[in-house]
Amino acid sequence: MNLEAIIASIVEEMRAAPDRGEVATYIPSLAGVDPGQFGMAVVTADGQVFAGGDAETAFSIQSISKVFALTLALGKVGDRLWNRVGREPSGSAFNSIVQLEAEQGIPRNPFINAGAIVVSDVNLAGHAPREAIGELVHFIRYLASDDGIAIDEAVARSEQETGERNRALAHYMRAFGNLHHPVELTLGVYFHACAIAMSCRQLAMAGRYLMLCGAHPEGGRVISDKRARRINALMLTCGHYDQSGDFAFRVGMPGKSGVGGGILAIVPGKASIAVWSPGLSRNGNSQLGSLALERLADATGWSVFGL
Amino acid sequence: MNLEAIIASIVEEMRAAPDRGEVATYIPSLAGVDPGQFGMAVVTADGQVFAGGDAETAFSIQSISKVFALTLALGKVGDRLWNRVGREPSGSAFNSIVQLEAEQGIPRNPFINAGAIVVSDVNLAGHAPREAIGELVHFIRYLASDDGIAIDEAVARSEQETGERNRALAHYMRAFGNLHHPVELTLGVYFHACAIAMSCRQLAMAGRYLMLCGAHPEGGRVISDKRARRINALMLTCGHYDQSGDFAFRVGMPGKSGVGGGILAIVPGKASIAVWSPGLSRNGNSQLGSLALERLADATGWSVFGL
Amino acid sequence: MNLEAIIASIVEEMRAAPDRGEVATYIPSLAGVDPGQFGMAVVTADGQVFAGGDAETAFSIQSISKVFALTLALGKVGDRLWNRVGREPSGSAFNSIVQLEAEQGIPRNPFINAGAIVVSDVNLAGHAPREAIGELVHFIRYLASDDGIAIDEAVARSEQETGERNRALAHYMRAFGNLHHPVELTLGVYFHACAIAMSCRQLAMAGRYLMLCGAHPEGGRVISDKRARRINALMLTCGHYDQSGDFAFRVGMPGKSGVGGGILAIVPGKASIAVWSPGLSRNGNSQLGSLALERLADATGWSVFGL
Amino acid sequence: MNLEAIIASIVEEMRAAPDRGEVATYIPSLAGVDPGQFGMAVVTADGQVFAGGDAETAFSIQSISKVFALTLALGKVGDRLWNRVGREPSGSAFNSIVQLEAEQGIPRNPFINAGAIVVSDVNLAGHAPREAIGELVHFIRYLASDDGIAIDEAVARSEQETGERNRALAHYMRAFGNLHHPVELTLGVYFHACAIAMSCRQLAMAGRYLMLCGAHPEGGRVISDKRARRINALMLTCGHYDQSGDFAFRVGMPGKSGVGGGILAIVPGKASIAVWSPGLSRNGNSQLGSLALERLADATGWSVFGL
Repeated sequence: MNLEAIIASIVEEMRAAPDRGEVATYIPSLAGVDPGQFGMAVVTADGQVFAGGDAETAFSIQSISKVFALTLALGKVGDRLWNRVGREPSGSAFNSIVQLEAEQGIPRNPFINAGAIVVSDVNLAGHAPREAIGELVHFIRYLASDDGIAIDEAVARSEQETGERNRALAHYMRAFGNLHHPVELTLGVYFHACAIAMSCRQLAMAGRYLMLCGAHPEGGRVISDKRARRINALMLTCGHYDQSGDFAFRVGMPGKSGVGGGILAIVPGKASIAVWSPGLSRNGNSQLGSLALERLADATGWSVFGL
Repeated sequence: MNLEAIIASIVEEMRAAPDRGEVATYIPSLAGVDPGQFGMAVVTADGQVFAGGDAETAFSIQSISKVFALTLALGKVGDRLWNRVGREPSGSAFNSIVQLEAEQGIPRNPFINAGAIVVSDVNLAGHAPREAIGELVHFIRYLASDDGIAIDEAVARSEQETGERNRALAHYMRAFGNLHHPVELTLGVYFHACAIAMSCRQLAMAGRYLMLCGAHPEGGRVISDKRARRINALMLTCGHYDQSGDFAFRVGMPGKSGVGGGILAIVPGKASIAVWSPGLSRNGNSQLGSLALERLADATGWSVFGL
Repeated sequence: MNLEAIIASIVEEMRAAPDRGEVATYIPSLAGVDPGQFGMAVVTADGQVFAGGDAETAFSIQSISKVFALTLALGKVGDRLWNRVGREPSGSAFNSIVQLEAEQGIPRNPFINAGAIVVSDVNLAGHAPREAIGELVHFIRYLASDDGIAIDEAVARSEQETGERNRALAHYMRAFGNLHHPVELTLGVYFHACAIAMSCRQLAMAGRYLMLCGAHPEGGRVISDKRARRINALMLTCGHYDQSGDFAFRVGMPGKSGVGGGILAIVPGKASIAVWSPGLSRNGNSQLGSLALERLADATGWSVFGL
Repeated sequence: MNLEAIIASIVEEMRAAPDRGEVATYIPSLAGVDPGQFGMAVVTADGQVFAGGDAETAFSIQSISKVFALTLALGKVGDRLWNRVGREPSGSAFNSIVQLEAEQGIPRNPFINAGAIVVSDVNLAGHAPREAIGELVHFIRYLASDDGIAIDEAVARSEQETGERNRALAHYMRAFGNLHHPVELTLGVYFHACAIAMSCRQLAMAGRYLMLCGAHPEGGRVISDKRARRINALMLTCGHYDQSGDFAFRVGMPGKSGVGGGILAIVPGKASIAVWSPGLSRNGNSQLGSLALERLADATGWSVFGL
């Protein structure tokens, strides 16, 4: 079965799936999203794009932005970043503050909220918040070769209004000296990054550099081969919060999920994949998105753990 | 540079390395091991073996046995195993009991001690302890195509004498109904598995089925392709305790370490690798073993996260 | 209203109380106890005894024995005991193992299970288990001036059969060197202490020395004034597990509860009180027992926190 | 020995004590305090005042203000307060955030920082922050019969500048709906309460209502007898953070410590006591202050756990 047919079959199954999880309700802009939607896009190493379902509908990428923000931050400060953020799976929920107390304000990894706030703090250095946000959006447009990508300002405002746990995380890290800018400035960058809206097609395009070991498909390098591998490693061990092990077990690809229902998954050398379905499992990852990737892995044999 | 030269260069570096970590001291048989030793063996997919340093010296494989015991248990009860053991990185030390309390006696994964004790309990079902131990040893001999592999009885006795924390873990799980045999019988199986002695060459040979997606190089299948991928996934996310993320980041291969200083690492489709150096890092993983694998990954480009 | 009338009124209210909590079910001997029972006995400083309800019915004193075992152990090793056990409320359930990991095998206080197991280990030193148990029973008979107090052997056997969490605690402490005898011997002493059966009248009599600042009402001293005050302090801060603060707030007396539904409470200089009702609150303390003591405190004004 | 002589003897011992603990350093106004100071004041039930050492020197009462703020809040909302704050010892440090995550934003008790922030939030209701602060200061002046009590504005400013962990606690509770005002307003009240400066004499005077079961010595009632007993109970079980059990064991009086080195202790019906020495023990309580109270208890026999 070819990739087009595989995707069509998955889209059909997901469209009809009875158990779709629960849409995030903490902000109105997410709570109002129709849970019946499902989209999928695959960009292969030779540049072909296969898409199905609601692959052109923009959604809030939320924590998937943490991958791009991390890439940007590593470009700025390199491995010095790891003095301020760990590289281990957290074993806890995405917004847990417990680990920060035991580990003196150093977040376990850059893909839990606390870690991504430190990454935002790095990206803010030397900039006004607006500039730092602009830089990230431009970086993602460049990665995706798509100037249509933008921030959903309504989501950004909502995040700011409801972000008390993130404020707690930020102040807590600041108490340990692990936040260099005022909390509201750093969180401004963080909240706007979460509010970036992209379609599955745009997201799969933006992930090409991780499939291509750091190369930009239109020429030049985004990052070195080694750094690309390392970001993939982090996505695999930490990309799905306390469900990362299960995702690696079932899907076998580096992936990063967002509470908007999107997942970006990478098969090095083969494919950059984006799926989206707004309903979430108990751990905050897209329920049908994970299942769709499991189906895709089964049908294609794609896995970093096999041939 | 060819593989032989790469290994020779790594062996040379490791032989001379000044900071070798600390040898495990909890039992005399481990405490007495010469920390100056270093061995390495690589079996490639085409069946060639490259070895260097003390690659023929037998050492206590300790927790590396958890990979083989898991493979055996999955053959017996299949996915029902996952009702009794989780698949997530623990975020804690190998012998932590904290997580067991919060999660009602279900260990986070089969590679921490508690999880491996449940796996031993599965392997004990329907057997006398001596038979269950014999079955595991025979299974490993079959995997390695080597009848010379055996248990170091002195180590097994020492484990039994000092295993109070493991007894605590076992009784604790039994309180939740997650241990079906008397604690001393299950732990008898567990302690003997930890006491298996193998050389790097033998260990790399035994790991071939994980490199070959479940196939035995001499014909037939050990396990299905899918199960092999899943065991590799578990090794990557959980194989180095609370240093698993760091190992994935630096080395990029599924791997399982043991407190005897050995590490088994797999490059699917390409290589099964064993390294051994008795000195351990703070997290209980072989210090030079990890470094040697990082060097090997850098020199060969081997990584599940790249091309 | 005089004490007799107060007790009669409380007994009447408790007899009719609709919400009686849940009887402990972990062993058959406790699960089978009729939850409709309620007893109460008060011994005043001048030696009068006031009793009501099922005050003559023997019940399993369970953790209340920890008070007497502690008194005995302090007599043997004095303040050296505090090298092996803490004196702080635990903030956790009675059988939690989490705190032991963080605090290196030192239990928070002598009234959680782990702490009482260490106390049993102290009382076992230089004895066969049977002797150590006998010594404790004789000590309690002496305190209560009652030779009819004995161990319920059926309860002791049941405790031994179901005590897996206590075994886990014991092995765990032994791993840190904080248990000096084999686990089964120390637990033998511990389980038998828990299985002592006493009536409210007997229990209130046994508590007289704590009311009398260490003096035995029939002459001589059980312990010094200072030690009596300190045991009272420990009962107040730690006697009701993670409900100790609430008991102090509502009742205002040093007290120790047992999972059999009994509570011993002390008003220094005024009264030694025992109540019993088998139904437990969520935290494992007698629901009507606590309520009855609250009523008694309100009616008499007895409280260590008032005049 | 009479009280005057006892105090003189204690003052002499404390003046010469070689190990004085460490002065708090998180704000300059505290870090600069001379650790050689020691003061003590005792007000007895008959209204006599005995004082010694630096009993007239004002110091920052810090967390001791939590007792007065709690009394005020209970006057406003009564037992409804306990829907928002617990009454159990925390088993953790004064500024721990761990417990808040497990217990859904409900602080363990009103004497850890998180609990006192909720109390401040209650006291702020219907007021501008300046009014709420003024109300608390007036309340303390009334309790102490002393109009000279005031806030040290330099300390208040410092608290505000360094209070990142408290901000984290406040935002965290706000995320669970357990803070009703904007964080900075509630913390404004909280920080100013901590910055109240009092001498030992003033503090002992302010504590008279707790010695007198809620009565004001100059007539009328501050609170009911029952509420006074309950506040004393809370001070005993929770007044010294994770050293509360030890304080109850050694001193045997309800007490509340502050990081400025003060302690207020109550002997119901007998005495209201204030001690002050700026050096702190590892748990953040005045080292010589605790010792002085232990000496006083030994010399006078004062204890809630004895006659």
